[in-house]
Amino acid sequence: MPEIHAHRRGALRTLLHENGVDALLVTDLLNIRYLTGFTGSNAAVLLHAEGDAKTLFCTDGRYTTQSESEVPDLERVLERASARALASRAARERTSYGRTGFESQHVSVEEYETLTVRFENVQLIRTPGLVEQLRAVKDEVEVAALRAACAAADRALADLLAAGGVRAGRTELEVARDLDSRMLEHGSSEPSFATIVAAGSNSAIPHHQPTGAQLRAGDFVKFDFGATVDGYHSDMTRTFVLGVPADWQRELYALVHRAQAAGSAAVRPGAEVSEVDAAARSVIADAGHGDDFAHGLGHGVGLEVHEAPSLATTGVGTLTAGMAVTVEPGVYLAGRGGVRIEDTLVVRDSGPELLTLSTKDLVAV
Amino acid sequence: MPEIHAHRRGALRTLLHENGVDALLVTDLLNIRYLTGFTGSNAAVLLHAEGDAKTLFCTDGRYTTQSESEVPDLERVLERASARALASRAARERTSYGRTGFESQHVSVEEYETLTVRFENVQLIRTPGLVEQLRAVKDEVEVAALRAACAAADRALADLLAAGGVRAGRTELEVARDLDSRMLEHGSSEPSFATIVAAGSNSAIPHHQPTGAQLRAGDFVKFDFGATVDGYHSDMTRTFVLGVPADWQRELYALVHRAQAAGSAAVRPGAEVSEVDAAARSVIADAGHGDDFAHGLGHGVGLEVHEAPSLATTGVGTLTAGMAVTVEPGVYLAGRGGVRIEDTLVVRDSGPELLTLSTKDLVAV
Repeated sequence: MPEIHAHRRGALRTLLHENGVDALLVTDLLNIRYLTGFTGSNAAVLLHAEGDAKTLFCTDGRYTTQSESEVPDLERVLERASARALASRAARERTSYGRTGFESQHVSVEEYETLTVRFENVQLIRTPGLVEQLRAVKDEVEVAALRAACAAADRALADLLAAGGVRAGRTELEVARDLDSRMLEHGSSEPSFATIVAAGSNSAIPHHQPTGAQLRAGDFVKFDFGATVDGYHSDMTRTFVLGVPADWQRELYALVHRAQAAGSAAVRPGAEVSEVDAAARSVIADAGHGDDFAHGLGHGVGLEVHEAPSLATTGVGTLTAGMAVTVEPGVYLAGRGGVRIEDTLVVRDSGPELLTLSTKDLVAV
Repeated sequence: MPEIHAHRRGALRTLLHENGVDALLVTDLLNIRYLTGFTGSNAAVLLHAEGDAKTLFCTDGRYTTQSESEVPDLERVLERASARALASRAARERTSYGRTGFESQHVSVEEYETLTVRFENVQLIRTPGLVEQLRAVKDEVEVAALRAACAAADRALADLLAAGGVRAGRTELEVARDLDSRMLEHGSSEPSFATIVAAGSNSAIPHHQPTGAQLRAGDFVKFDFGATVDGYHSDMTRTFVLGVPADWQRELYALVHRAQAAGSAAVRPGAEVSEVDAAARSVIADAGHGDDFAHGLGHGVGLEVHEAPSLATTGVGTLTAGMAVTVEPGVYLAGRGGVRIEDTLVVRDSGPELLTLSTKDLVAV
């Protein structure tokens, strides 16, 4: 879809004008994918504020055929040292590139030293986060990919439960790999991140990595996982009880469930991100568990699993329609167990659109 | 295994002395894993040249429990902005940190600006690649992990073939996901990289990503894939023929097979990396296909799929016993098909140790 990439480049040009630069050297591969559709492992783009006719795309000989098909609409340079090659091109026409921005949050100090030599009389301007600013608000092509990724994760979890894959005696690792395989079957190219399966007291460790520990009757079993479709990630957490839930488990679950609902209800255009966090956090704090919820409420999700905005106590900024965010409160009781419930949502004027559809009622497996 | 990490930190201290710095701020997560065993997603280490007693490890509250178990042997600081927190600590004791190195090939220009403020009167010295220099030569703990990763990939491929998973009518994507699932079953935590399955004319694209294209009788089918065990990656390419190989396929395969053998035979301590590349490349060039082999011969492999050394025409340096490298010549005939054969090897005084054991004879599936 060259049109959508051209549209995104057009939106970026508005930011270049606002930042007073003639061009932007884009070196982050995800930003390049967003702007061009290129999915290879080496590329750079020198995006000129005047238009695509003056914009250059560079990759190397491994990607000759692939880049012809993925990036049919930009002039192409084939060089292994892609950013440096484009810097040399700019230096040769330096009147057009007087002030050139670069992604200073991605470019290393070493690479910067090399680039300044290549760019010669071009003035390099630190312009961090311009493409990321655009990426925070998803277009409908992106939402469709997120929706497909969330659906793959939902289906994999449903299959796992239907097949009796969550049962006493299996190890966390076995269950995690089973779930990973089922995501692949449902169209995920790879897990969005290392799948978390945490049973019993391990569920009290927020980012526990699955081990050879066996699931046992009475355990909380916490799943935090995601699928990847067209490079876009889903992110969902569900917590089950193996067997009959004890009273403390019902109470803990109900608390986190209420907090998650309160956080989701606060997701709307114009909401301060810290207020969304507070909406969920206050529910947990009021129940006396404030200290047992030691992480932020959520984060943006897209080409990266964690991207802007950050829904956290210290977060700054407001939500905008089209942002995709997670809402994932948790309460962790060390040595006993923990519950986290997480959805991926799209901010909409009419209320959040839920992409992760697996039930959030307490499921006894 | 805290001993191995302490040993690696000791080796790094020798490099700090050689580079004339009092300490090194380590911010790359793979380098931190190598030096400490920590596997979380946020950390920094301020490694002091005088010893572990003056060395600080920082992560955040999500990893309290995990870091206690993974990094029991270093003083721990819990802060979200891990590198900045350690910079502030160093600034308070600046007489001990007069000249502090940092990983200038990883630290971004923006992060550097922030760190220079935090470090105050500490002189920051660009010291790129010190830990990577150590990582290029594997210790036996690392070789064991590489061996396990290669074995998982070998077994997955054997299972796929035994199950008739490579057959006409299946799509490249189906076959790739089948192989990915089998690697998980054999202990891989995740594919080392997006698995390549390329059939027919797609096999002529060196880094083709699997599509909905169906495998057909007479096709070359090229697999390039790897498993991950304990964070270490395997990397192997095999090319099969579906059905009875045509004469041109036998000839092309035999040529690449000879080149691969010649490259492997050149892998020995002291060999110039460009000479290893040339040993394989000359076989292909002598057959008139020099232009059809447009990538380097191989690369180091370990915590990253691609790391030092680079076995390429333009590569500089020599091999050392303990390095783990790939040898992967290929010949690609656009529109017809291509063959690549790749092994992962460990450089040994007694000749290379082959880690990827799947047969390299031409297999007709």
